[in-house]
Amino acid sequence: MTDDRTRPLLLTPGPLTTHSRVRAAAGADYGSRDPAFVAMSDTVRTRLPALANAADTHVAVPVQGSGTFGVEATLGTLVPRDGRLLVAINGAYGRRMQQIAQTIGRKVQGLAFEETDAVDPARLADALDADPGITHVAVVYCETTTGLLNPIEAIADVVAARGRELLIDAMSAFGALPLDLTRIRAQAVMASSNKCLEGIPGMAFSLIERGALAASGGRAHSLALDLHAQHEAFAKNGQWRFTPPTHVVAALSAALDLLDEEGGVPARGARYAANHAALTEGMAALGFRTLLPAELQAPIITTFVQPDDPAFDFTRFYDYLVAHDFAIYPGKLTESPTFRVGCIGQIFPDDIRRFLACVDSSRAALGYSAATGAR
Amino acid sequence: MTDDRTRPLLLTPGPLTTHSRVRAAAGADYGSRDPAFVAMSDTVRTRLPALANAADTHVAVPVQGSGTFGVEATLGTLVPRDGRLLVAINGAYGRRMQQIAQTIGRKVQGLAFEETDAVDPARLADALDADPGITHVAVVYCETTTGLLNPIEAIADVVAARGRELLIDAMSAFGALPLDLTRIRAQAVMASSNKCLEGIPGMAFSLIERGALAASGGRAHSLALDLHAQHEAFAKNGQWRFTPPTHVVAALSAALDLLDEEGGVPARGARYAANHAALTEGMAALGFRTLLPAELQAPIITTFVQPDDPAFDFTRFYDYLVAHDFAIYPGKLTESPTFRVGCIGQIFPDDIRRFLACVDSSRAALGYSAATGAR
Repeated sequence: MTDDRTRPLLLTPGPLTTHSRVRAAAGADYGSRDPAFVAMSDTVRTRLPALANAADTHVAVPVQGSGTFGVEATLGTLVPRDGRLLVAINGAYGRRMQQIAQTIGRKVQGLAFEETDAVDPARLADALDADPGITHVAVVYCETTTGLLNPIEAIADVVAARGRELLIDAMSAFGALPLDLTRIRAQAVMASSNKCLEGIPGMAFSLIERGALAASGGRAHSLALDLHAQHEAFAKNGQWRFTPPTHVVAALSAALDLLDEEGGVPARGARYAANHAALTEGMAALGFRTLLPAELQAPIITTFVQPDDPAFDFTRFYDYLVAHDFAIYPGKLTESPTFRVGCIGQIFPDDIRRFLACVDSSRAALGYSAATGAR
Repeated sequence: MTDDRTRPLLLTPGPLTTHSRVRAAAGADYGSRDPAFVAMSDTVRTRLPALANAADTHVAVPVQGSGTFGVEATLGTLVPRDGRLLVAINGAYGRRMQQIAQTIGRKVQGLAFEETDAVDPARLADALDADPGITHVAVVYCETTTGLLNPIEAIADVVAARGRELLIDAMSAFGALPLDLTRIRAQAVMASSNKCLEGIPGMAFSLIERGALAASGGRAHSLALDLHAQHEAFAKNGQWRFTPPTHVVAALSAALDLLDEEGGVPARGARYAANHAALTEGMAALGFRTLLPAELQAPIITTFVQPDDPAFDFTRFYDYLVAHDFAIYPGKLTESPTFRVGCIGQIFPDDIRRFLACVDSSRAALGYSAATGAR
């Protein structure tokens, strides 16, 4: 195969390295009200719920902007002003949901966990039992902060059993990790174009239960981020309310074709898992330690503890890797110096092996030792 | 030259037909925190205020999404909760600003004009004199609803003389129509990537007076649309707060190069004016009447009254034009059936002449007469 991917390869949580067909699709100009574009938008909106087995129960409402725009739009549209939101927090993206709710004037409280611990369904159950006034629970499926996988099915069961509504930030999970909305109950699932779906950034979306969406009119704090109004516009004439990111939508349409061709969500998840296995085994062999134990780790992005050798300098390490065509991601935790390596996008185990060879050679080139010891 | 533009050519208010270099730039994957992308963002943010002669007084704050996202972000960030906004309204985009302000909980009132009349500075002066409680005035420079050009300098003088703050929606004007912020005073100028700058859609921005921006912390109704916080993030490390539309930013960077190469804002405005002159003269010769008198018409997008021949059907007309590689735009007015033809994007007078030949042939092909009479 001709490898025409953009260099450096992006081993990040997104934006990602995309397929040439995705980038080619992004290179065409569409009129926003042209029937060809309207039909493409319609197809994309139809295909997204099917990925979570939710075609009969949820509708996809896309919104311009990044994932955070979609999260804010979802919270503002679905949490009533007299409702109360509990956010389970074990990383930056849980904290951000709490901050959004505060900023937009929704009653909210956090249920905090360590960043290296999963959200505990039992503690969540206790919190809900203790406070019947909580109407909605928000949780992050895969916390990009660390790469931690929260037990979404157990969490959903706890919330459903107590008659509350669940809002899932599935930003780093949707399209690769299992999510079956006939098995678990969620009022909304939020995701974006540029993570496991492998499109380009610029569009978020939320899968929303039809009844909840219909009941949400006039509730949003924002005109641009009102998903009820956005959905009404689509229902009326298939058009976006405001100028759509046409190139992003076209890229996502091509990306969804590629997802189907790869074998759907299970196949994509399996490729990421193979990347992740190659990465963690290889990095362990080079002396790098993961922040999380294996059982808490999603195969999406992995946090590594920086070597404690004073000769290790993250900026030099980063620059060395970029010079060899690999871009990694800084850590987000404040407690201990870390860095992150993503396994998503058009990345394959062979890429990971070449990355590992590069990390290997960086030790001598940069004069550091990576022996941080086993976990 | 090889003409590799996307077909149909988009004779619309945007998204537009873009240059192949813009689309090529959009076809590369960048890491959002990679120094190469950070440097590109920085350059774009520096170049935008210079286009309005505002490099010393205003900073550009970009935001993900469409132009409306930028307008909502600007109103939410700059109009204090105890301020009061007057919106001069002579079209859908003025009405939208009023609706945004209402939705986000700002005190607002409209000053309405006919959609076929310009905003009258004298009436605006009277309204401000009569109500000292108005702190901010918002106005649309070029009303895309009709294509009408509002007298922005006279409006700005009226507002400045009365010590109020002016917020200009320059969405369809920025980059082609004169706007010199050393000559007129405006607290903010709002625009987007995909109109006269000829990038692709997905990013709005606001040029904001430095002092006003510094004073606006904690005021926004939204986390995602808080331009003060967005600016703080750029100031800290040059990075976007939330995943940027990297491909859109790269496309805009290439588009700004092309604007410079063309000769800057005056040259671009001159090309659009030549397109517009060819269009209106040619359409008049074919029997089509413009909605607006020439003196109110901006050279950006032109509204034509639909022929009153019952044999004229807009959908058939549209489809015929698309089949011949030209996409026009439906009318937005409700009073009389119209359609709109844009003159912006990578469109040249020769394209307009080919378009006119196509409209000409449509008369016989579709069996209608266009003699709507001279204005």
